[in-house]
Amino acid sequence: MTSTVQTAVIGVTGYAGAELARLLLRHPRLRSASPVFAGRIDEKDIAHGGVPLAGIHPALADSTGSGDLKLQPFSWELLAERGVDVLFLATPHEQSRQWVPEALARGLRVIDLSGAWRLNDAANRAIYAFENEGSAQADATQAQAVYGMPELHRKQIARAHLVANPGCYATSIVLALKPLVAAGLVDLNCGIVCDAKSGVSGAGKAPTAKTHFMYAADNLSAYSVFTHRHTGELLEQIGVDAADITFTPHLLPIPRGILSTIYVRFKEPQTRGSIEQVYSKFFAASPMVRLYKDTLPQIQYSVRTSYADIGFELSHDGRRAVIVSCLDNLLKGASSQAVQNLNVMQGWGEAEGLE
Amino acid sequence: MTSTVQTAVIGVTGYAGAELARLLLRHPRLRSASPVFAGRIDEKDIAHGGVPLAGIHPALADSTGSGDLKLQPFSWELLAERGVDVLFLATPHEQSRQWVPEALARGLRVIDLSGAWRLNDAANRAIYAFENEGSAQADATQAQAVYGMPELHRKQIARAHLVANPGCYATSIVLALKPLVAAGLVDLNCGIVCDAKSGVSGAGKAPTAKTHFMYAADNLSAYSVFTHRHTGELLEQIGVDAADITFTPHLLPIPRGILSTIYVRFKEPQTRGSIEQVYSKFFAASPMVRLYKDTLPQIQYSVRTSYADIGFELSHDGRRAVIVSCLDNLLKGASSQAVQNLNVMQGWGEAEGLE
Amino acid sequence: MTSTVQTAVIGVTGYAGAELARLLLRHPRLRSASPVFAGRIDEKDIAHGGVPLAGIHPALADSTGSGDLKLQPFSWELLAERGVDVLFLATPHEQSRQWVPEALARGLRVIDLSGAWRLNDAANRAIYAFENEGSAQADATQAQAVYGMPELHRKQIARAHLVANPGCYATSIVLALKPLVAAGLVDLNCGIVCDAKSGVSGAGKAPTAKTHFMYAADNLSAYSVFTHRHTGELLEQIGVDAADITFTPHLLPIPRGILSTIYVRFKEPQTRGSIEQVYSKFFAASPMVRLYKDTLPQIQYSVRTSYADIGFELSHDGRRAVIVSCLDNLLKGASSQAVQNLNVMQGWGEAEGLE
Amino acid sequence: MTSTVQTAVIGVTGYAGAELARLLLRHPRLRSASPVFAGRIDEKDIAHGGVPLAGIHPALADSTGSGDLKLQPFSWELLAERGVDVLFLATPHEQSRQWVPEALARGLRVIDLSGAWRLNDAANRAIYAFENEGSAQADATQAQAVYGMPELHRKQIARAHLVANPGCYATSIVLALKPLVAAGLVDLNCGIVCDAKSGVSGAGKAPTAKTHFMYAADNLSAYSVFTHRHTGELLEQIGVDAADITFTPHLLPIPRGILSTIYVRFKEPQTRGSIEQVYSKFFAASPMVRLYKDTLPQIQYSVRTSYADIGFELSHDGRRAVIVSCLDNLLKGASSQAVQNLNVMQGWGEAEGLE
Repeated sequence: MTSTVQTAVIGVTGYAGAELARLLLRHPRLRSASPVFAGRIDEKDIAHGGVPLAGIHPALADSTGSGDLKLQPFSWELLAERGVDVLFLATPHEQSRQWVPEALARGLRVIDLSGAWRLNDAANRAIYAFENEGSAQADATQAQAVYGMPELHRKQIARAHLVANPGCYATSIVLALKPLVAAGLVDLNCGIVCDAKSGVSGAGKAPTAKTHFMYAADNLSAYSVFTHRHTGELLEQIGVDAADITFTPHLLPIPRGILSTIYVRFKEPQTRGSIEQVYSKFFAASPMVRLYKDTLPQIQYSVRTSYADIGFELSHDGRRAVIVSCLDNLLKGASSQAVQNLNVMQGWGEAEGLE
Repeated sequence: MTSTVQTAVIGVTGYAGAELARLLLRHPRLRSASPVFAGRIDEKDIAHGGVPLAGIHPALADSTGSGDLKLQPFSWELLAERGVDVLFLATPHEQSRQWVPEALARGLRVIDLSGAWRLNDAANRAIYAFENEGSAQADATQAQAVYGMPELHRKQIARAHLVANPGCYATSIVLALKPLVAAGLVDLNCGIVCDAKSGVSGAGKAPTAKTHFMYAADNLSAYSVFTHRHTGELLEQIGVDAADITFTPHLLPIPRGILSTIYVRFKEPQTRGSIEQVYSKFFAASPMVRLYKDTLPQIQYSVRTSYADIGFELSHDGRRAVIVSCLDNLLKGASSQAVQNLNVMQGWGEAEGLE
Repeated sequence: MTSTVQTAVIGVTGYAGAELARLLLRHPRLRSASPVFAGRIDEKDIAHGGVPLAGIHPALADSTGSGDLKLQPFSWELLAERGVDVLFLATPHEQSRQWVPEALARGLRVIDLSGAWRLNDAANRAIYAFENEGSAQADATQAQAVYGMPELHRKQIARAHLVANPGCYATSIVLALKPLVAAGLVDLNCGIVCDAKSGVSGAGKAPTAKTHFMYAADNLSAYSVFTHRHTGELLEQIGVDAADITFTPHLLPIPRGILSTIYVRFKEPQTRGSIEQVYSKFFAASPMVRLYKDTLPQIQYSVRTSYADIGFELSHDGRRAVIVSCLDNLLKGASSQAVQNLNVMQGWGEAEGLE
Repeated sequence: MTSTVQTAVIGVTGYAGAELARLLLRHPRLRSASPVFAGRIDEKDIAHGGVPLAGIHPALADSTGSGDLKLQPFSWELLAERGVDVLFLATPHEQSRQWVPEALARGLRVIDLSGAWRLNDAANRAIYAFENEGSAQADATQAQAVYGMPELHRKQIARAHLVANPGCYATSIVLALKPLVAAGLVDLNCGIVCDAKSGVSGAGKAPTAKTHFMYAADNLSAYSVFTHRHTGELLEQIGVDAADITFTPHLLPIPRGILSTIYVRFKEPQTRGSIEQVYSKFFAASPMVRLYKDTLPQIQYSVRTSYADIGFELSHDGRRAVIVSCLDNLLKGASSQAVQNLNVMQGWGEAEGLE
């Protein structure tokens, strides 16, 4: 493993792309080599124009001049020329389905932020209706993909060539539930309820009726009830059946942040200490998870940090728990988790550049 | 029953008081007799000052001059002098506990917006630690109290002398659950989850660390997990045990509105039609409940209306439902429900003055 | 003048259209005849679909059934069939330029909410680049148009066939400045500064980069500096030259409301009393203007009311004033002013249906 | 000048204190020596309790453990023991008036974030009504104070023992106006208008009626018209008379950020280039000012950065300009400017630790 690496980000024009650019530009291991930035693969005009990064994301202008870095038109030649080792794709999932096989063939390691390669089970992938679903190439690529949640798959990520960076909702829920389910504590007969709420940046940068200020502000709405695309990640990563979990996302009138309120019933009564121990043990080597003991996480504590924050309350009889899990959907739910994966892949400290 | 009535509002200075004043001033049956307005019983200075209503709530100024009505110092003499028939108390619950017995003794009918008289079961009242809990007078008063949710107790409200106006969270949850539980559809063994979210006006007008803009804005937080005071209302009105229901309130970064997301499991698989029928039948005579068929309620549709809005989604197998219940916490969750109760008590149209 | 009138609204799908529908449905003089509602002239699909009003604006559903009124496909035949007397156009300005001449030819009276007919001076209209600018028909139509601000042009509105309803920013600024300028108090040599701030609904319902929640929330931005289209209205209605006034609009992170902070210098020192007198006299017969004496208006006091709110502070030496003018851009800045114009045209009380 | 320095922050519990702590903990020159943190001088209980920093500001918890640093009870002995060189006071101005003389006597260098020592002219200080106003000690202290705006007073700050860190509004306005006024371009006869808007954090952490979410949200209000305490800083630092400038602050419904819209008239017509040159020259050596050429600053670009952002538009005739100046009131308006002053005092790069 080398301690220098050349990175590139395709799709830097979106919200997660901006945060990824910010993190990479400040990463202590990457200072010597400026990342290569490009727009989305279909944004050729932006790329050709040679727009400076700060022209797209004005807040990234700074006196070191890193905001002056120009967005490049994407091409494989560009990546070769600049000696890119690791490619971040912040592109729509159909684009990732098309380009990742070629990137791997060209010897690049890929961290894909889309939903293209997160799901092993074809049944769970069905909701995406990928164009190349079932092709030999797609199956071979999927077989290489590692779900990019270091807290669960640190070892496999370290040697992966394709990391499928998790969904934002999935990250908040899997981290909260996996330790308890893996420990065999949860009574699945009664099902788990995951009531999740996300800020508007989770809906992407495209102006739509639902991202209009007048729709989102002073409002709260549930959506994709029983049908959200992240459900498959929950099933595969937590290890439960579809009937075991009810997941309802809501659109919050805030720019960023996710809070998931998760309801479980235990097979046997638990104590505060017994649950804390399960979490502490599970996350003992995980610097990007903060366990709350005396209070519950809130969105304001997690947002603009790279942490997943987890806390809980027990019912009087120890039979039920309400778990609260918070993170920043653009950071631990997207770009900082991508950098965390890079750190793991490079053998660097997992939290480097993230605090 | 008379078609004219003299009303008074004690505690008009708070948020619910302002909405109550607005509704009473515009109520078609009350135009001939201006309501009597007073501050909270402990706000003697405000009252003595003869502050005009619009001095407290500037938005209530209008060209008809109703904003010029002066707040009066509260006294029993004032009420007698003005010939008050119906007294609205928008006062803290301890004050309501003290004053309601006297008001009843003086022959007034009372609609109390506080939590003072909502709970029949002393165990459920324990959380309030009322000063006069267990006194003969308090017990006698409680025995007269009717829970002021017309959709459940219309007949008793019509002849009540003391109406205990429901809590805002309780209204949103009881209306959504009562029809299903009463119909015997819900599997209580697995418990019901009520994940509720409220705007900041629910926390009252007193400036506190939690109502500070910097705490509430861009944030979401769960609070009073397993311990919220409205839980007793849920148990008594829905008719379930404490172990059957988990209720988690959250503080939303919006001024007003409640959305409750409610998760139930059914004993037998249901269809969309079977559930719709249960609701339609239950609310057939209830003008202030709107049932949603093609979409789910959202806070923006309910806020600044006097309606409770209910919609739901069924899981593929018909075994689970996610019910979404929305209302304006200051209206159907407080003041418009109080006026609805007045309408029922007077024998007027239940929706009069509320649309 | 008749006391019954049949109204129609074209363009009811937008934000101002929704408020206009709400006002007309509740107007005491219009209860006998349901207004005719249509989508924008280019929204033929919506119209043909027979969508109920509450399908577009869910908050308009109520137990009286007025939300069930179906949107009609627009046609002149429809208007004739339904006996429409007064046509409200809540359409883009190019559409109003095209349709108003025909409406007048058909004998309809028109209240146009767009910027199509507000400006008498061709130089001021240049910024709109109207397609039919300079045509004989357009000139003749413009000659009939009355600027629909009852506080300035009550008499002409009463007998107008075409009322050009004012712009939202213009309403807030003209009402604050006209009394002082007309009284000859303002020193124009130093210019007037109008620093105006508007909620996002002023930018319309179309999802754009600027109406995206992520752009507007937690932000404030100035726009159209020295170039905003409402400037012409200021010049013509206040009676000043372009060099005399600097108008800067800003986009506020709130749904609705305008606050304009206006800076003037006086030729001679003034007292609080002298300025109050000028305003009181000017607005003596104007029920929809509220003058603030002891405090300044704020957006929260004006929003969801049909009033324009005006207050001011004087400098110590009486030489300068800061005037604060607030209104709801969708009401006094659009739809309630349109209904106010209808009241004036019909000889009804100017405030009827607006409180 | 030494390259290591021991710092202490008194008043770390407030909003500016939290940002200051964050900056100092991450400052590359300060990593070897943890800053000493204490509550406000009157918060002895917090200090004695040994509360960890993250207990007050949960977002400051991180995996490096810096959030575990305990708040100390303030005492001069503590500062001596820990070898403190530079003392940051994030305390109310009366406390700073009392404690700064003693700190200087003990040989400490002080950066005071309050308004205690910013004003040279007793007439301008009158609004504060300082208890020790006019005492010999206070006068001697004031004589040592340097106004801590490096862009204006870099050299004096470098050798100062007492730096009076500027007010947030004053920073945004002085930086925008000083270059133009100093260049003699501005026609003061007509006065300058400064219409400034600030997020709620500027009002401090104490819960009050004005910081209540229900007051600030969905609202905009002007306050302290003609009477704001920062006016004196404008006069002294820009070098104008009270009659030359009108400054109106407004409370924005956002957590943080200031946008000032500033209106000037020029003695002679200007071009875009002539104004750009004046600014570029003035800020040539100032890394923390960003000049905007093709667009105007917005709050969202400046917030959570340490920059002051300045842009402008000229009227067609070059006689008037609208200048837009943005910054984060907690950073360039408070804590990052304090660190910038530390950098200047230490001879470090002015932008170190601020990007």
